[in-house]
Amino acid sequence: MASKRRDGLDTKQKAPGMADILAAQSRISGVAVRTPLIEAPSLSRAFGVEVYLKLECFQPIRVFKIRGAYNKLAQIREREVVAASSGNHGIAVSYACHLLDKSCTVVVPETAVQEKVDAIEDFGADVIRYGRYTNEREAKARQIVASKGGILIHPFDDPDIIAGQGTCGLEITEQLSEFDSVVVPVGGGGLISGIAVAIKERRPTVKIFGAEPTGARKLQPSLEGGRIVTVENPTSIADGLTSRAIGEIPFRICSRLVDGAFGVSDTEIVSAVRNLAVKAHIISEPSGAAPLAVLQGMKDISILGERVVLVISGANVSLEWLISVLKN
Amino acid sequence: MASKRRDGLDTKQKAPGMADILAAQSRISGVAVRTPLIEAPSLSRAFGVEVYLKLECFQPIRVFKIRGAYNKLAQIREREVVAASSGNHGIAVSYACHLLDKSCTVVVPETAVQEKVDAIEDFGADVIRYGRYTNEREAKARQIVASKGGILIHPFDDPDIIAGQGTCGLEITEQLSEFDSVVVPVGGGGLISGIAVAIKERRPTVKIFGAEPTGARKLQPSLEGGRIVTVENPTSIADGLTSRAIGEIPFRICSRLVDGAFGVSDTEIVSAVRNLAVKAHIISEPSGAAPLAVLQGMKDISILGERVVLVISGANVSLEWLISVLKN
Repeated sequence: MASKRRDGLDTKQKAPGMADILAAQSRISGVAVRTPLIEAPSLSRAFGVEVYLKLECFQPIRVFKIRGAYNKLAQIREREVVAASSGNHGIAVSYACHLLDKSCTVVVPETAVQEKVDAIEDFGADVIRYGRYTNEREAKARQIVASKGGILIHPFDDPDIIAGQGTCGLEITEQLSEFDSVVVPVGGGGLISGIAVAIKERRPTVKIFGAEPTGARKLQPSLEGGRIVTVENPTSIADGLTSRAIGEIPFRICSRLVDGAFGVSDTEIVSAVRNLAVKAHIISEPSGAAPLAVLQGMKDISILGERVVLVISGANVSLEWLISVLKN
Repeated sequence: MASKRRDGLDTKQKAPGMADILAAQSRISGVAVRTPLIEAPSLSRAFGVEVYLKLECFQPIRVFKIRGAYNKLAQIREREVVAASSGNHGIAVSYACHLLDKSCTVVVPETAVQEKVDAIEDFGADVIRYGRYTNEREAKARQIVASKGGILIHPFDDPDIIAGQGTCGLEITEQLSEFDSVVVPVGGGGLISGIAVAIKERRPTVKIFGAEPTGARKLQPSLEGGRIVTVENPTSIADGLTSRAIGEIPFRICSRLVDGAFGVSDTEIVSAVRNLAVKAHIISEPSGAAPLAVLQGMKDISILGERVVLVISGANVSLEWLISVLKN
């Protein structure tokens, strides 16, 4: 029997499987994009392995989250939608609501990047700035649902969201016949768990690794401890990766299918954003460059094998910040 | 009977039709990407019309030219390929040769953007810097073919190239049910003519307009004069749009199907690059932003109708230049 947490999330929901990801792929077709997967020869030369980039930064809203959000929202009847987000989930929910003719409220942190807030509002959502951490804005979002009705869309602890993100992994298996590992940014674990389900089904020997900020490290300690570890005050320049804990469904999936997660510092992330722009001509946000930061920081890259896919998850970044990084 | 010009191009080749574009779509599937077409709400508000962006800057090589180059190269038997290019055609040919296991030489102008040259070399092509104008490097490329053999791939005056670029127009008709006009950057006319064939077949009432630099204005004078007009010393910050003349096949197509072309100054193009980044969060090269420059400069936007698609053709730009534009 399913149990309910105080926040209304059904914690015993079934983790999505390959059938859910295939259904999601069909559902999001024409909305999310089959993003390019390219080799980056200059990075391959620099690291002595074949480096491939899966360019989720080339989605319509420049971040992978449209996959999960649209897959979820296309299946619900509710017309009033609420989300709590550091930005990218909010952009995705706002965009999907715009396409599906639903009304939308997004609670963002007071520290949200202005460009992300602008993008959320651009597609017609109401934006409420509140608190700093995920739990604060989730509480605010639940309060809105309690008082006004509607449905709260969780950014990662939801099987339909995870199945949607999993389509990214499915595409990788369709686009590249042989590869040894995939490195994925880790916030709440929705993307890495979806990708892991798809890839381990199609390519069981491929290794799946997370890239998480040292200031918001949750996945590796959780995998090592066998239980969800919560970070009290997560901080990172990668604002998309600062949730306090991996979700319960993602944790269950990652425990089975993810091979480990590497920590990367803010300095390493900034260096990766710059290298991605200079060497591969790709603009990314800090979260999106975290997998390259892993490669840059590794002492023994052979763990990753000879053909490595980096998931460049997004590019919603303040232009001011981008300029400051690139001109150095 | 087909006649041959001194440069070996078959000038009486048949212009491609819808069947060629549909065949190209199938041929390039999995290599070129079905790029996003999104509304840009902040631009829609600014101009009082619905503004949609077709993001060819999100192709694997960040420019539309992979469509035509791959469609051409996948059909030829020759293993040795030569191209003359200001950069983007060279990147596309180099990338397609890499995928198809052909060897490749690209002649670029002495003034080529270093990032574009790096990208050409990244995929394994030999690069030769020569001259400044299209005719100079075309002559050099023909000389290479004459002495070493192989096949010269023209950037636009080729039915297979045009059919490949036409898949961009076909996608627009599949992605958007109703629209009134499309604005396309004009260099040699390959992109606009391919798009025009696809769109006028599927949506005969939609208007197709070109965006061309005032310092390299060829299409509008050619349309008005009923013959190909050559610009002696084309200059523009939009290096992709500085060919001296529209191709013969593109001219024949444009004469039938294109509704006009607007001139934009370098100042207007730079302003458009900046606005696209600030208002729509899209990084583009000068050529790619030319259609937005048209909107910005129009006195009477009603000519374009209520739903306007701007083809943002590419984003291969020097980071140094980009920073200088964005930080102003």
